[in-house]
Amino acid sequence: MSKRLVFVTGNANKLKEVKEILSQGGHPIEIDSQSLDIPEIQGTTQEVAKDKCRRAAEITGCACITEDTALCYAAFNGLPGPYIKYFMQSVGHEGLNNMLAGFPTKAAWALCTFAYSAGPGSDPIIFEGRTDGSIVPARGPKVFGWDAVFEPEGTGLTYAEMPSEQKHGLSHRGKALEKLRAYLQSLPVESSSA
Amino acid sequence: MSKRLVFVTGNANKLKEVKEILSQGGHPIEIDSQSLDIPEIQGTTQEVAKDKCRRAAEITGCACITEDTALCYAAFNGLPGPYIKYFMQSVGHEGLNNMLAGFPTKAAWALCTFAYSAGPGSDPIIFEGRTDGSIVPARGPKVFGWDAVFEPEGTGLTYAEMPSEQKHGLSHRGKALEKLRAYLQSLPVESSSA
Repeated sequence: MSKRLVFVTGNANKLKEVKEILSQGGHPIEIDSQSLDIPEIQGTTQEVAKDKCRRAAEITGCACITEDTALCYAAFNGLPGPYIKYFMQSVGHEGLNNMLAGFPTKAAWALCTFAYSAGPGSDPIIFEGRTDGSIVPARGPKVFGWDAVFEPEGTGLTYAEMPSEQKHGLSHRGKALEKLRAYLQSLPVESSSA
Repeated sequence: MSKRLVFVTGNANKLKEVKEILSQGGHPIEIDSQSLDIPEIQGTTQEVAKDKCRRAAEITGCACITEDTALCYAAFNGLPGPYIKYFMQSVGHEGLNNMLAGFPTKAAWALCTFAYSAGPGSDPIIFEGRTDGSIVPARGPKVFGWDAVFEPEGTGLTYAEMPSEQKHGLSHRGKALEKLRAYLQSLPVESSSA
């Protein structure tokens, strides 16, 4: 029997990516998904991720995983971080660059945090993936969040300009997901069953 | 019998100010205070305030009020807003100015939101006070948050440079508190009792 758990997300693209990665390897893991509107708290990326996963487990009554993405500016000591979605909505690609006009460094890192809870009352474990790069004027399709303004170190391309295989290979989400996969596949089957 | 309710805050200065204002007028309102660490959600200032007050009422079992402060940049369409405390901690007074270097307008508004819940399960009502001004290089004592970089319109002084009476007379908090006071004093005594 394969391991089952619920990925709480309303994002079909993320679900597809997570399903693909977790079905790889010797112990394929089956994922159910549920779209829930869970309020996120303010705080560090780790606090935000753990709180959301804890609530997801309480609501679903299942083992579950959640995902959070942050974009952290070195000049801002890690902010906007978990609040990047609000800045993206409010100031757009150009604004995300303009916010750094008064600072010498455009360095930034993309941070993905998956959280896993074995079920209601079980403290979530987090799996982080970080990709270093810099904030640049938008290049490539602007369809997916801030992908067009983030250029991972050493690539010369923004996330938006990369073929999806290249992006998955070096992305913050890919790295975090790989850690989650390794952990889940190391669990005895019973302990991650819903 | 005067009306009683709990102000949930860990900030002694805010408590003192609120006690003073609410004890004025024909129907003085007595305030108890309780210091609780209530996680704040992400969202609009109104969502953040209502959620916190709702939880405060659930935890205390009483009628209660909570307070939230935001600093909103016109160039950022209202952000950092409720997240200003994190930006203040991360980039300081100079950074709060530098973030606007790439934008033509330095206009900003300070927003205070008091929320009142009549008790557990009772939908919070909010009272907002807004003061328009601009972000300027720090002037005056730097002891109280971002007061040194916010200059209310038409004053030529930052909050930090003003005598406290002048500040209370025009501040976002003073305006919100005045609305709260008027509301609470208009209630029949029974309905706001704990």
